[in-house]
Parts: sequence; structure tokens; C-alpha cells
Amino acid sequence: MTDQEIPYNQRSSILIRNASLNGRKTDIRIEDGIIRSVGETKERDAEITIDAAGDIVMPGLVNTHTHAAMSLLRGYADDMVLFEWLSEKIWPLEAHLTGDDVYWGTRLACLEMIRTGTIAFNDMYFFMDRAADAVEEAGIRACLSHGFIDLFTEEKREAEMKASVALHKNIRARNNPKLSFALGPHALYTVSPEGLRWCAEYSVEHDCGIHIHLSETEQEVNDCIATHGVRPAAYLDAHGILTSRTVAAHCCWLDTDECRLLGERQTAASHNPASNMKLAGGRAIPYSDLRNASAPVTLGTDGCASNNNLDLFEEMKMAALLQKFATRDPTILPAAESLEIGTKNGAEALRTGGGVIAPGYAADIILVDRDTICQTPFHNGSSNLVYSCNGTVVKTVICDGAILMHDRHIPEEEAILERAGKAASALVARRNVA
Amino acid sequence: MTDQEIPYNQRSSILIRNASLNGRKTDIRIEDGIIRSVGETKERDAEITIDAAGDIVMPGLVNTHTHAAMSLLRGYADDMVLFEWLSEKIWPLEAHLTGDDVYWGTRLACLEMIRTGTIAFNDMYFFMDRAADAVEEAGIRACLSHGFIDLFTEEKREAEMKASVALHKNIRARNNPKLSFALGPHALYTVSPEGLRWCAEYSVEHDCGIHIHLSETEQEVNDCIATHGVRPAAYLDAHGILTSRTVAAHCCWLDTDECRLLGERQTAASHNPASNMKLAGGRAIPYSDLRNASAPVTLGTDGCASNNNLDLFEEMKMAALLQKFATRDPTILPAAESLEIGTKNGAEALRTGGGVIAPGYAADIILVDRDTICQTPFHNGSSNLVYSCNGTVVKTVICDGAILMHDRHIPEEEAILERAGKAASALVARRNVA
Repeated sequence: MTDQEIPYNQRSSILIRNASLNGRKTDIRIEDGIIRSVGETKERDAEITIDAAGDIVMPGLVNTHTHAAMSLLRGYADDMVLFEWLSEKIWPLEAHLTGDDVYWGTRLACLEMIRTGTIAFNDMYFFMDRAADAVEEAGIRACLSHGFIDLFTEEKREAEMKASVALHKNIRARNNPKLSFALGPHALYTVSPEGLRWCAEYSVEHDCGIHIHLSETEQEVNDCIATHGVRPAAYLDAHGILTSRTVAAHCCWLDTDECRLLGERQTAASHNPASNMKLAGGRAIPYSDLRNASAPVTLGTDGCASNNNLDLFEEMKMAALLQKFATRDPTILPAAESLEIGTKNGAEALRTGGGVIAPGYAADIILVDRDTICQTPFHNGSSNLVYSCNGTVVKTVICDGAILMHDRHIPEEEAILERAGKAASALVARRNVA
Repeated sequence: MTDQEIPYNQRSSILIRNASLNGRKTDIRIEDGIIRSVGETKERDAEITIDAAGDIVMPGLVNTHTHAAMSLLRGYADDMVLFEWLSEKIWPLEAHLTGDDVYWGTRLACLEMIRTGTIAFNDMYFFMDRAADAVEEAGIRACLSHGFIDLFTEEKREAEMKASVALHKNIRARNNPKLSFALGPHALYTVSPEGLRWCAEYSVEHDCGIHIHLSETEQEVNDCIATHGVRPAAYLDAHGILTSRTVAAHCCWLDTDECRLLGERQTAASHNPASNMKLAGGRAIPYSDLRNASAPVTLGTDGCASNNNLDLFEEMKMAALLQKFATRDPTILPAAESLEIGTKNGAEALRTGGGVIAPGYAADIILVDRDTICQTPFHNGSSNLVYSCNGTVVKTVICDGAILMHDRHIPEEEAILERAGKAASALVARRNVA
């Protein structure tokens, strides 16, 4: 099948033949966005037949914390102290962002995520209607939040509530099963108690997700205890924010009780190891405590300004290595678990319906090259994927039964790179003139 | 110029046109393995002309600590406690290694290094004559050491001395400027004082390098103090091992005085962040102390069993991120410095004559893709190379004025993957039967 014949970003009936699943050859039938069968089949009547020729089939990766449009800020400022980095570089540049910038930044981010095998992401930023446009054109799944920051004023709170509701309506109107909405209360230090409570209530009423930053820095913990007399997770819980639909990003500084609380609430802790290391927060997520508490741990890249890429294969390695380094225990977070937090756990947290290669699950799957340096030798598939390979090992990406990349080809790649590059240059030029 | 016309692994006169160097377009003329001119030229009489079309030119990367043939063990065992990992998995498998295995493992490693922009490496292993065969066929530079392990017996020491001298002779006889020999005393806990002293003396007499493990684990430090009453660097120095021709791998547990000692001796400290994290040693190299002491810091991947790849682009990111995490200082080891330890510092440590793009330096250079996702946008070249890209960004590799990869093509890649994969399977089969 040539590239021209692939109906990119259109749900199709797909028959994948000769894929390798857990070391065995298999066929996979996909219809209406769902995996219908796994195992050898004699059926041949699919709109698209892909001969995987031994490529490995696995669930697509899920990025549970990012700010996609920040791809435009990739490399704009690095190696700085957090507050200076934000106040002198990131925020002044963001002040000049337009809806078009967010559109092109999100297109660039989606391009990068698809190329590296990510099929869904959890996003929080501004101009999210334009982010939604970009996501729909890319064909990837996304849960979109308007970053709700009221800075403890009623006026701003009203505006953020309005913006959140407007985004929710906008997303509902698109009637696209791959798009969902979440409340995005930014963090306990940027959102008033009233704002948090409103988000929590809206989330219950409309069965929406919640996407929030939690305990990224030690200062957040210290300030919260000083101001409110409780640690951050307890504070958020008192305002209804910790739910089974909530993704709490970072969670570096949780203590054991807080891990237990996340476990009780079934709130997902999104681990962002590269960002935590680069910004020098100083503490790795308490993975063992979270796991012991049965709290779901998922994986995220954070935005490109603090990573600086969106490659979850790299992130799986970083997560496993950081845990080992921080705990001095080489057995913690082994390769197979790292794969699980990068795929299944993320899919459950974002309620994609995927994350597992089995009948009835969403057809959010990727084909991974088997004939590469990083897969040679092939003693252990999980180990190779986590420790040896990066996202360039991905050949084909299928999301909701639609092909988004095939044989490493993604439509419009060159045009997106060019337009996003120009948008970034123009953004910096506007900031420099101002 | 088509692939067929490229004389791979043959020194040629090369004219690179339209390369991007520090943001400016330039031509580069290469003759007799040396960079002859940098800057626009009207000369056109080169055997090979490469239109870089805006690709970035930079020094090739230098891997100052690896065990190349361990690529055959990639993924064989992970996520285990160090001693069990070594005694139950790695050593029993290594006991079945043959010269042919080392040849194919080293070919696979050279393939991976060339593909990811590495032009020289510092190797320590067994059957090093076969490693030398592989290195010559690959065309990369290497400094080869026989791993000298006498376990404090005279009989073994004699054998190791003999093996070291034999390897030195073997390498000299090849008369290949890209190949050099170093003594390889494995570590202070595996080599007798007599063995260390012999290595030191041989190194002076023959102006050879020394390649040794130093302070990889806390236990090494504690045992050394308990047994010898001094810390490891002082102990090695007392035996003449710390010289300006020495590369000391790991160096995680050096204290400030030891860093000063390495600075005085101009001994290179090879940082191996991924391996240190994966094996959970618990301490990052004291980069600031080494830098303050003007000790050269270089970069290494360690062997594939503890990394599990040889991609120095990934390692530059890991190095920068690990320093920031371990010190809680986001300004430490910024991108430009990470590039320097990955290129120039390594080239100086291995005395390749390269590491800088300027006339008179060895033509050990790579062309890096500019039109990729990881380079979009292009706010900062160093940042993109270190934080955003991985080794797949490399398009063309020139070593000693010979082209080893062009437009991502390396001769014999498929055959090497196949043969190395088979060698690894056969090795495991032999171990399982035994």
C-alpha cells in the first residue's frame, strides 16, 4: 500500500497482519475505532491491510501533562533559576502569544507526539479553542483545559469560569470522540478556594476531568503549610479537587499520607521526570509510596520549555533511571512498569478506552520497528523499548481506528515545521520590539 | 552525489558547502584527514563535494568510557541489584564470549556510535584484537584497552601484562592513525598494587593512555579507606595511575580534594550519567568541584548492559539534567558546556587531534539535520542539540577525513544487525546449555 492510498486521519476498518505481540505473531482487526480481534484471522475484507512484517504492536503512549503550544518556546530559555526563567523569559514571551501561535504550536506538538508514538495527551494552556482546531486536524486524542488562574480575585475568577465553560461548550459542539474537556485549575497557589470549589463542582456536574499542578516544588508545600496549616494534597482534597477524574501533575513532594490520599481518591499522579530534573526541583516523585497506596502513576513530558521534547520513550527511560538514582534501588520501576505507566495507566487516567491490545479496547495502537540498532539484540522487548530506543522507533500510529502515521510518514510535516518555526520567530520579534 | 559514489571509510579530499557553523553559512575544506579551511572558498577541486544545505556542522562526539562489545548484552538483564546482576547474569554470560562475539558486538557498537554522531571511543574489554578488527572496518577512532584484572595474584598479573603488551603490539602493527592503545587496569579493587605500578610505568615508557574505573560506588571508597587508609584517587595517584593521559571512568564519589588531585594531574573524569542512574550508585559526579579544579570532564555511555544505548546526544541531556537534579541548581552544566564535554573535552582526553571546527584540527566532524521537529523552532542551537534532539538528528559523519555515514546511510548496516543479533542469541544459547 503506498502512502497515497492511506486515508490519513479517517476512521477505517484496518487489518494488521504479522504483528509481533508479546513475542508471538498475530493479526489485529480494527473496526469503528475499536480492536475487534487479536490473533490469526482468515478475514481479509478490511479497507486497509497493513503487513506489519514482524513489527511490534503495542498500545500508543499517553502524555498526561503538557502545555502543547509551548513547543514554540523550545530552547528559548534554559539553565536558569526557576523564578528568573519564568519572570524574565517565559511569561514575557507568553504575554505576546496569539491564538494563531497556539494553533501552530499545538500542531507542532501533535506532530512530534504522533511521530514518537503518543496517541493522547492532557493539555493545559490558553486559546484552547485554537488548540482544539490543531488537535482535530492532527487526529490525535486530547483532553483540553483552559489554565484557570484567578490569582485570588473575584473579577479574574468570573472571567476564568466563563472561559472554562466556553471551552467546554466549544469542545462539546465539535462532537469529536477524541476530544474531551477538563477543568484546569492551575495550582493551589494561583487559584482561590472559591475557584477550586467551582472547578470541583463543575467537574462533578458534568463528569469532566480535572488537570492541576500539585507539589511540584518544596516551596509550594512550605507555603501551603504556613498559610493553610495542611499539606497541598489535603488542601486540594478539602476543596473537592482530588477525584478519580483528576490528573495531578508532578507530585514530587507528596509525603506518604498524601500518597495514601491520592490512592483513596484514585487520583492519577502524572510523573514528569525530565522537567523535574531540568528545573532542579530536587525530589523525585515518591513512586513506591504511590504504588503501595494503589494511586495510579502516569507519565508526562510537561511543556517543551522545560524538557525540551515530547518523546515519551525518552521519558519512560528518564522515569525509571531517576527513581533508581533517587532511591538507590536499581530494582524500582523496572522496564515493564515504565511501559505500563506510559501507556495503560495514562489511558485509564484520560479515559480513552485504550491502553491495552485486546478486543473491545480503543484502537489506539502503534507499530514499532523491530529491525533497528536499538532493538538489536532482542533479549527483552520491554527493556529495549524503555532503555535502548527513543521515539524514532515508531513506524505507524493508529488512533481511534484512524491512521495518523504510516511507515514514518505524516501528512503536512514539512509545512507544519515551516509555519511553526515562523510563528516562533515572529513571537520573539514581537516580544523584542515591545 | 549518490550513495554509490561515496568512498566510505576512505580518506578523501572533501569540500563541504553551505554548512551552518555558529549560525553562519560556511564552507569547510578537508585534506589528508585535517580541516584545511573554514569559511567561504572558491576552490572546487575536491574528490567529494557535499552540499550541506544549511545542516549544522559540529565536532563529532567522543565516548570516553564504554565496553563496546557489551552491545550483545543489551537488555539481557536489567533492574537488578548490582552484585546479583553481575554475578548471576553478566559474568556468567561473559564467560561464554568468544573473539567472534567481540568482533560482532563491537561492529554493532560502532554502527550505533557512527549513526549517533560519535567519531571516537575509549574501550575496555576482552579479545581486543578482534575489537580492533571491527573498529578498523567501521572506520571510527578508538582507544583500546585490554581489561587488566589480576585479582591480586602474580600468575594472573603476568598473564595480564602479556595480554596488554600483545594488544599494544597488535595495534602498532596495524599502523592505523585512528587506533590507539591504552593500559586498562580495571579498578583498584581488581588490580594489585604491582599491577597498577606496571601499568603506570608502561604508560610512561610508551606514552600510552590509561583507562580505569574510579569511585563508581560508595563501597569502593569505603573499602579503599578501610584497607589502604586513603581515598581511591590518592591511592591510584600513589601508584602513578593519575596522569594527563588517564581517563578515570565514573568518579561519582570523589571528594573535593580528589577533584583537586585530578585537576593537578590533568586526569580526565569520564561522566557516565545514564549508567550511574540505572545502577543506582546514588551520587552524581561532583561536576562543579571538578570544574573548579580545572579537571577535564568528559562523557561516556558505559557499556550497553547498563545504559542501554550508545547515544551521546541522549547522554549530554542526561548529564545536564542529572547535575541540576542532584545539586538543585538549574544553572549548572548548561547546554553549551554539555556539548563541550561531549566533544572537545573528550577529543583532548583521547588525543584525537579533533574536537574543534577550525583549520589544523582533525577532520572528525558531523553534519546535523536542521529541518527536524527537534530543531523547530530554532531559538538556540546548543539547547536543541542537548535538550531536544537525540542521535537520530545526525546525517553525515566524517572521521579522519573519511566519510562513515552520509545522508544517514552506513554501508552494511543490515548485515551487521543480522550477524550481531545472531551472535547474541547463540551466546545466550551456549550459556543456557552450560
